[in-house]
Amino acid sequence: MSKRVGENTIKFTIPPKIISGYSIVGPKEGKSPVANYFDYILKSDSFNEKTYERAERKMLEQAISGAIDKANILVTDINILLSGDLLNQIISASFSARQLQNSFIGLFGACSTMTESLAVGACLIDGGCADKVACATCSHFSTAERQFRFPLELGCQRPPTSQWTVTGAGCSILSKDGVGHNVTHATLGKVIDYGINDMNNMGSAMAPAAADTLRNLFNDTKTKPSDYDLIVTGDLGKLGSEILIDLMENFGFKLGQNYTDCGQIIYTNKEKSFMGGSGCGCSASIINSYILSKLDSGDYKKIILMSTGALVSTTSTQQGETIPGIAHAVVVEKGK
Amino acid sequence: MSKRVGENTIKFTIPPKIISGYSIVGPKEGKSPVANYFDYILKSDSFNEKTYERAERKMLEQAISGAIDKANILVTDINILLSGDLLNQIISASFSARQLQNSFIGLFGACSTMTESLAVGACLIDGGCADKVACATCSHFSTAERQFRFPLELGCQRPPTSQWTVTGAGCSILSKDGVGHNVTHATLGKVIDYGINDMNNMGSAMAPAAADTLRNLFNDTKTKPSDYDLIVTGDLGKLGSEILIDLMENFGFKLGQNYTDCGQIIYTNKEKSFMGGSGCGCSASIINSYILSKLDSGDYKKIILMSTGALVSTTSTQQGETIPGIAHAVVVEKGK
Repeated sequence: MSKRVGENTIKFTIPPKIISGYSIVGPKEGKSPVANYFDYILKSDSFNEKTYERAERKMLEQAISGAIDKANILVTDINILLSGDLLNQIISASFSARQLQNSFIGLFGACSTMTESLAVGACLIDGGCADKVACATCSHFSTAERQFRFPLELGCQRPPTSQWTVTGAGCSILSKDGVGHNVTHATLGKVIDYGINDMNNMGSAMAPAAADTLRNLFNDTKTKPSDYDLIVTGDLGKLGSEILIDLMENFGFKLGQNYTDCGQIIYTNKEKSFMGGSGCGCSASIINSYILSKLDSGDYKKIILMSTGALVSTTSTQQGETIPGIAHAVVVEKGK
Repeated sequence: MSKRVGENTIKFTIPPKIISGYSIVGPKEGKSPVANYFDYILKSDSFNEKTYERAERKMLEQAISGAIDKANILVTDINILLSGDLLNQIISASFSARQLQNSFIGLFGACSTMTESLAVGACLIDGGCADKVACATCSHFSTAERQFRFPLELGCQRPPTSQWTVTGAGCSILSKDGVGHNVTHATLGKVIDYGINDMNNMGSAMAPAAADTLRNLFNDTKTKPSDYDLIVTGDLGKLGSEILIDLMENFGFKLGQNYTDCGQIIYTNKEKSFMGGSGCGCSASIINSYILSKLDSGDYKKIILMSTGALVSTTSTQQGETIPGIAHAVVVEKGK
């Protein structure tokens, strides 16, 4: 039986449940207004490792094992690990998978990976192809900055449209049964490009893709923004969020007070993060801490999670390409 | 109802069908012993583009649209494009998805991407989450060589264990219904690392992962090598294939004349490709031409396709890491 509703949305017959979430962040993120919700805050962003890449991987490994522990299951109960990250050849995810010895599906959706993994994971569970999956991703300011922009040692000045890559990781355990919040729908995104070519203006590059996915979700499910207690994007930041609000208004949907962005939740104005947080770890750490807690407490009953990714590459940018974006969304309802 | 059999295998209730396949290769690959089976052979490996990266992307776009045309469907009939490639941030796949405007799931499994996409695609279709998906991947000798190894202009000498990255792309259309070959099982691989750290010895790095997945497939489905007309790996090359045969013998499974490797099919000894072909485009082009034709003709009735990936990154290698491997397998039976 087809679970497809509309053009781009899947409605799950027996909604897979988020039975646990774990978040780990760096010291800067540990000063966040929502810091109390994080499971673990690093004292140093090197996490006692020789390289930042190893520190990033260690965070991801801790997020996965932490989420497994919180779900009170064994690592062998996980049928499939769905993971990806920002680094070339998703080395954080691949090397973490090497430790775990579960079946592994490597994903790449840049900063959209958290909801990409939740969407694909929910499809696998609802389709009977898995009973439990781990959906995880991470990012690290120092690995991303030196891979995508400049050597850290240069101390380059950051333009006002820039965002700060979150040092953090998050993992959700999705399960066929058990106690948890229900993933009722997934809207898979398209790659959308409005012609932004500035690697320091990711919010603008991602906002059109976010608007496209959100519009498709509302149309496919015949809902409107006010039907949700929270609509949260991954890491559009301040500028990207404003563009999303404008684009959605053009599409006939008015986003209200129930709309926010993980990139704005995680930092305050004091932290020189300019437009806010970004990176796979941004939505991964906020969703798996603050947002799941608010579902637990009943403050939220029905929400949209939509991580957003800028599919930027130094190679394509150097060859004069613009930066396409993508956004994947899932609808989550509070479990009984 | 769970479709899981054994630890790592999914048995599809209503097997998704491969309703078409399209392959496109470069001029060197156009001299292959199986060249007659390819749909399109480039005259020049720049494909009239300014950069090799753009040539690679153009091949992928042609593979996807070619497979859609051969299936006699419209691009709008495709619910989801599943694709990835070797380039950083899978730019070939992302930029191709930008042209298509279908929902896009970005995958990364290095050279295992062809069967990774077939496995995930089959799960989505059998689970009712999609009616038709396109599974596609590509590689280009010149983009891979300069990203992973040396500038082409250096003309570095290649060691005898090296393989030659195939310039090519392939796409399979998977469908819930229609006429085609049945994907009956998928075995999702684990990340396995036996400690190889030589970027010019990929076959040895991937063989342990291939052996693990193949052993799991046989155990989970309670079958043995002789139950299949063909067992074909992605791109282990000569050395990797020999290691696979040895490892499988240690596991109690004797691979016979029905075992071969796409990396050995695609080149002859004359082409200075040493251990044979590699790259996502290797298994993608061979599966979507020669192998599908042999299923069409009835030469094969039941086969195992297993693309193999070396999860290598210049960053991790420079930091002293070894090269983990992964392999995903699907069982395909000739359609009526």
